Amino acid sequence: MATNTQVRLASRPSGLPQDSNWEITSEDVPTPGDGELLVRVLYLSLDPAMRGWMNEGRSYIPPVGIGEVMRAGAVGVVEASNNAKFSVGDHVSGTFGVQEYAVSDGSGVVKVDISAASLPTYLGTLGMPGLTAYFGLLEVGALKDGETVVVSGAAGAVGTVVGQIAKIKGCTVIGIAGGAEKCRWLVEELGFDAAIDYKNDDVRKGLKQHAPKGVDVYFDNVGGEILDAVLGRLAMGARIAICGAISQYNAQGELRGPSNYMNLLVFRARMQGFVVFDFASRYSEGVEQMAAWMSEGKLAAHEDVAKGTVKDFPATLLRLFRGENLGKLVLKVAAE
Amino acid sequence: MATNTQVRLASRPSGLPQDSNWEITSEDVPTPGDGELLVRVLYLSLDPAMRGWMNEGRSYIPPVGIGEVMRAGAVGVVEASNNAKFSVGDHVSGTFGVQEYAVSDGSGVVKVDISAASLPTYLGTLGMPGLTAYFGLLEVGALKDGETVVVSGAAGAVGTVVGQIAKIKGCTVIGIAGGAEKCRWLVEELGFDAAIDYKNDDVRKGLKQHAPKGVDVYFDNVGGEILDAVLGRLAMGARIAICGAISQYNAQGELRGPSNYMNLLVFRARMQGFVVFDFASRYSEGVEQMAAWMSEGKLAAHEDVAKGTVKDFPATLLRLFRGENLGKLVLKVAAE
Repeated sequence: MATNTQVRLASRPSGLPQDSNWEITSEDVPTPGDGELLVRVLYLSLDPAMRGWMNEGRSYIPPVGIGEVMRAGAVGVVEASNNAKFSVGDHVSGTFGVQEYAVSDGSGVVKVDISAASLPTYLGTLGMPGLTAYFGLLEVGALKDGETVVVSGAAGAVGTVVGQIAKIKGCTVIGIAGGAEKCRWLVEELGFDAAIDYKNDDVRKGLKQHAPKGVDVYFDNVGGEILDAVLGRLAMGARIAICGAISQYNAQGELRGPSNYMNLLVFRARMQGFVVFDFASRYSEGVEQMAAWMSEGKLAAHEDVAKGTVKDFPATLLRLFRGENLGKLVLKVAAE
Repeated sequence: MATNTQVRLASRPSGLPQDSNWEITSEDVPTPGDGELLVRVLYLSLDPAMRGWMNEGRSYIPPVGIGEVMRAGAVGVVEASNNAKFSVGDHVSGTFGVQEYAVSDGSGVVKVDISAASLPTYLGTLGMPGLTAYFGLLEVGALKDGETVVVSGAAGAVGTVVGQIAKIKGCTVIGIAGGAEKCRWLVEELGFDAAIDYKNDDVRKGLKQHAPKGVDVYFDNVGGEILDAVLGRLAMGARIAICGAISQYNAQGELRGPSNYMNLLVFRARMQGFVVFDFASRYSEGVEQMAAWMSEGKLAAHEDVAKGTVKDFPATLLRLFRGENLGKLVLKVAAE
């Protein structure tokens, strides 16, 4: 009988996750019951938000319990189905977890079309990160054509889409990313107007240079000192969309608050948090628009595909927190 | 010839203003030129924002220059006029500065009706603090009837009006203020539902007790730890109106940022700064509504009138930062 290898949360990390926080387990591949389907996982999504799911306590989503299979978005193929909506061989995306096989009752599972885009793209530009970028920028950021937009974590899954959508909207786009190579890539390959290498450049000076009239929309994926730097360079009436704070997720002790927040008053600006789930009723609108932009050649999907097995999930997650990925980081765990 | 005693900014303070930051000067009472009027100042306004005006650097308004008469709102009486809009004996409000007499070209000067309200009220409920409360709560806070509202600096000029307007709108109102007497006053005299004494009570516990379903609107006058405490108790979709940060104005070193700001994401909340000037085109709407509420007995004006001369301004300003005032602090500098 085939086995299902799984990665479970063994204990809650303090700081960066360690090997000891994970447990690799193995069980028989489960049999789907009435109304259920069995999915063989092909690609796992790696997301900064995963770090928050590992913490105890109230957040926008319950934490992963100790001993539970680690939560993860994934795409896979249906191996068996007792659910009329899905057939064997269908490709599907859903929150299947860090395991080789998942049983689902079909809720939250959507079929994906491999003739329209590659499977990893359904975890990136046409998945949660793309939708996060789309609604965060256009709705929470209330982007207007031609504005000056700054996005941090610019070379990541969400940031690459934010910058490209802002360019489609005729904006001046400044990306903030770590390392000269990422910055070169953002400008030369993705069409950003400028990129600031926070590891080597002075972010404040870079913003002054590239956003001389101030920042209208800041899409924040990182928090920390970079949020403060952008707060020091706002345009009147600016909007800050708070999507994440990856610089702080593995910090120990108290989170660093933005000491420049009183510039919200000086510049009559707002800072607003959101979660992509808030726009669940409009996902199809976002996917259709982005798929159209992709087919028109205006929006490119960028995935960074690591290859391995589910056991490589813990190490691959650390790559994300070290900022080693270009675009959406996914882990290919099985052949399509 | 009569003299005009003035209080000028001698140097920029670090921390709380000291005597050495001020210079008392005396000059002849000026003669108004063409189109100008001469105002004898009767009441000076004392505002937390004054501390910011003493700092160098870019803000929502230019700093007071070294050697200049300290900026201050005031009400007074017209002593001489070469301006067709104003007659001798008119009562007026304007930014006349910390001095006994001011010459003005009339811009920004408005006549006030002493039969409708007392002169200090035009520096408080029917002046900038009242308008700040009105537009900050209703527009920036986007208050909806019946919500749970928290206001800090609740016993101050703005806070007393915020709480009363929220009560008029059928809200549950929790004030945060320093000291048992202020808290008693807020509940027993102003009709707040509850008050938390931040000097003696645990603010987090108080919020949990009095806002069990979370805070829908937070009107922030103080910043610092109290802002963090409220960020820890938001309701889904909460709005925070950033009006001031008096706890931080005299702090040396870096301002304390709100370390709980990621709750904006968890609770899909927004934090927005504003300045009353943004609503200048709607001042008359605000004054008319508040005057109507006053005449209906729904809104009471509360002024704390110190008596002295303009030379008492520096000491009176410190009373404000020590939180010794109940309601709007004004300094009566001359007989009406």
